[in-house]
Amino acid sequence: MENSHTSPTAQAIHPTALVSPKARLGNNVKIGAFSIIYDNVIIGDDTTIDSHCEIGYPTPLTQGEPLRIGASSLIRSHSIFYEGSSFGEKLTTGHRVTVREKTKAGKNFQIGTLCDIQGDCVIGDYVRFHSNVHIGQHSSIGNFVWIFPYVVLTNDPHPPSHVQMGVTVEDYVAIATMSILLPGVTVKKGALVGAHSSVSRDVDEDTVVAGSPANFICATSKLKLKDGSGSPAYPWRKHFHRGYPEAVVTAWLEEFPR
Amino acid sequence: MENSHTSPTAQAIHPTALVSPKARLGNNVKIGAFSIIYDNVIIGDDTTIDSHCEIGYPTPLTQGEPLRIGASSLIRSHSIFYEGSSFGEKLTTGHRVTVREKTKAGKNFQIGTLCDIQGDCVIGDYVRFHSNVHIGQHSSIGNFVWIFPYVVLTNDPHPPSHVQMGVTVEDYVAIATMSILLPGVTVKKGALVGAHSSVSRDVDEDTVVAGSPANFICATSKLKLKDGSGSPAYPWRKHFHRGYPEAVVTAWLEEFPR
Amino acid sequence: MENSHTSPTAQAIHPTALVSPKARLGNNVKIGAFSIIYDNVIIGDDTTIDSHCEIGYPTPLTQGEPLRIGASSLIRSHSIFYEGSSFGEKLTTGHRVTVREKTKAGKNFQIGTLCDIQGDCVIGDYVRFHSNVHIGQHSSIGNFVWIFPYVVLTNDPHPPSHVQMGVTVEDYVAIATMSILLPGVTVKKGALVGAHSSVSRDVDEDTVVAGSPANFICATSKLKLKDGSGSPAYPWRKHFHRGYPEAVVTAWLEEFPR
Repeated sequence: MENSHTSPTAQAIHPTALVSPKARLGNNVKIGAFSIIYDNVIIGDDTTIDSHCEIGYPTPLTQGEPLRIGASSLIRSHSIFYEGSSFGEKLTTGHRVTVREKTKAGKNFQIGTLCDIQGDCVIGDYVRFHSNVHIGQHSSIGNFVWIFPYVVLTNDPHPPSHVQMGVTVEDYVAIATMSILLPGVTVKKGALVGAHSSVSRDVDEDTVVAGSPANFICATSKLKLKDGSGSPAYPWRKHFHRGYPEAVVTAWLEEFPR
Repeated sequence: MENSHTSPTAQAIHPTALVSPKARLGNNVKIGAFSIIYDNVIIGDDTTIDSHCEIGYPTPLTQGEPLRIGASSLIRSHSIFYEGSSFGEKLTTGHRVTVREKTKAGKNFQIGTLCDIQGDCVIGDYVRFHSNVHIGQHSSIGNFVWIFPYVVLTNDPHPPSHVQMGVTVEDYVAIATMSILLPGVTVKKGALVGAHSSVSRDVDEDTVVAGSPANFICATSKLKLKDGSGSPAYPWRKHFHRGYPEAVVTAWLEEFPR
Repeated sequence: MENSHTSPTAQAIHPTALVSPKARLGNNVKIGAFSIIYDNVIIGDDTTIDSHCEIGYPTPLTQGEPLRIGASSLIRSHSIFYEGSSFGEKLTTGHRVTVREKTKAGKNFQIGTLCDIQGDCVIGDYVRFHSNVHIGQHSSIGNFVWIFPYVVLTNDPHPPSHVQMGVTVEDYVAIATMSILLPGVTVKKGALVGAHSSVSRDVDEDTVVAGSPANFICATSKLKLKDGSGSPAYPWRKHFHRGYPEAVVTAWLEEFPR
């Protein structure tokens, strides 16, 4: 082996990383090989940025707002975050994530590989995007929302135009794979959008819609878990707790006593 | 901060960039950190290549044709362009764009983040692709075309086979999010393909189609802008002018006098 | 030109590559610029890793299993492979491929640009994924399978849950563009899933299904090649031989004598 190095994660800031002296890095921040940290960035304590990332990509659209990454976050390799967005603590991303300016997200946000968040969005706490989700500008997403692969949230009702009607997704909603939310729709609390659907009208609380265009199928309470238990699959927070903090899970267990 | 650098954009060619001495770079070309410029490349004046790009990726399929990038272009980070394609002036890309060999595009082409252009395509002037558009080989795209996220242009009528029937998209067409154009179809001038559609037959001029398979919905002139004006949403060039040069907009205003 | 370098492919291991001394590299392995080879990696002879890759990305989920890349493979730039997966000889990838842990694939696997393989999958020999295919965890894929762009294989019947019902795709199946296979379905030998379909039930051998939900259309033998020959388009191995080794093609010709 002609060219030997220790792992880039063995060092706080890899020698090949390009870190602006203007960037404000907390304690115990790690920066991987071949990553660039631009000027207008605030990174919380104990956060790790993998290799090949760009953090705080400059844009004239932010009026000087910095990129803020909360403490105890993990940004996996090849990800790009623009300046002017902010994220609470414990942000975790997959690889090749792109997030543009002026998006504000809460804590414990998980963003899957290849997701593309277009900017000017508001995102709550404990939101989870699986791989390859596209969030159009002006989307508004509540808390504990799940969005699955190849889902697109749109905003322009007659493209191309200057009219922007962002989508609203309320708390505990799950949007299954390869569905599209058309401009201006609201998916209400606890609803489920079935896979491969095109949602053109508002979706009622705790209901299932599916199809293209999506129609009402049933109440979410009608769906049973396919694990042999016969238990209801929704609200999912009754049975799915992986990765949520104990206080959150305790509150859910009190909401749904056995 | 142990490791401080000025922004890579502060220097014409970043010290970490790998630029072949055979590449032909115009005046005032900027190359970002960790980018590779291969041998068979011609880049016009005043063009910026961001970080982590590969420009002129070699392929045996080009018979020595170089990659030509027009003047005043901006290629954003993590993009890969093969040798053997050519682009007019003012090409602008998002991040992580992939463009293969033997594609010829006109001026002012905008390619969104994560787009994948497969090669052997012809693309006109002022074409705009939003994020994550996939253009199959042998596609032919006119001028002033808009293609929205997760649209796929296909080419093989019975995959896998050696039969390649490229798609044709004429001037001023808009193809909305997550639609697919099946092999050999032609979408005629000014038509609109609705979101989440699968287009299996030719689409007439200035008509709207939608569905899977896509059917005729109405003339585009029937769609009204949802901005309270009640004005027609199409032809979009009557009201949407952002980013087009003054001469183009003036011609459109003369075509549609108020 | 201030900063000139020869092509990174001109050198076995580019000086900018970061290669762990623990990685086990075969003879004549090439590593491109700005790539990282982590500790727990075994790469076969005559394999080329392009630039900007990460090979053997560490994860606690693998119980120490290495990443094994077979001999004579080509991993194109910006790709990320986790430790704990294994690939037979002659793996070929496009760009920006992501493959997670605990996937086991056979020989001559082709993975297109932007594909995302989620881990815990079993994949046979001579499988070909076009661009932007998403393979969910616990998928099982046979030999000589073709999967086209924007296809997603899912696994969770009522997301989010702990129930994982992987998809099974048998030998010689072709799944056309932008289709989704719902959790637990089996697509049987030689079947064709039409473009833009949502497959919710098992698909019989040598049949065509299409639509959302996908329904039976016809036997694959009813589809004729659109090349003027009038020959049947399926089984595709009767007429499509590009890139398969001579022994494979000979066996197919004997299976279908003219």
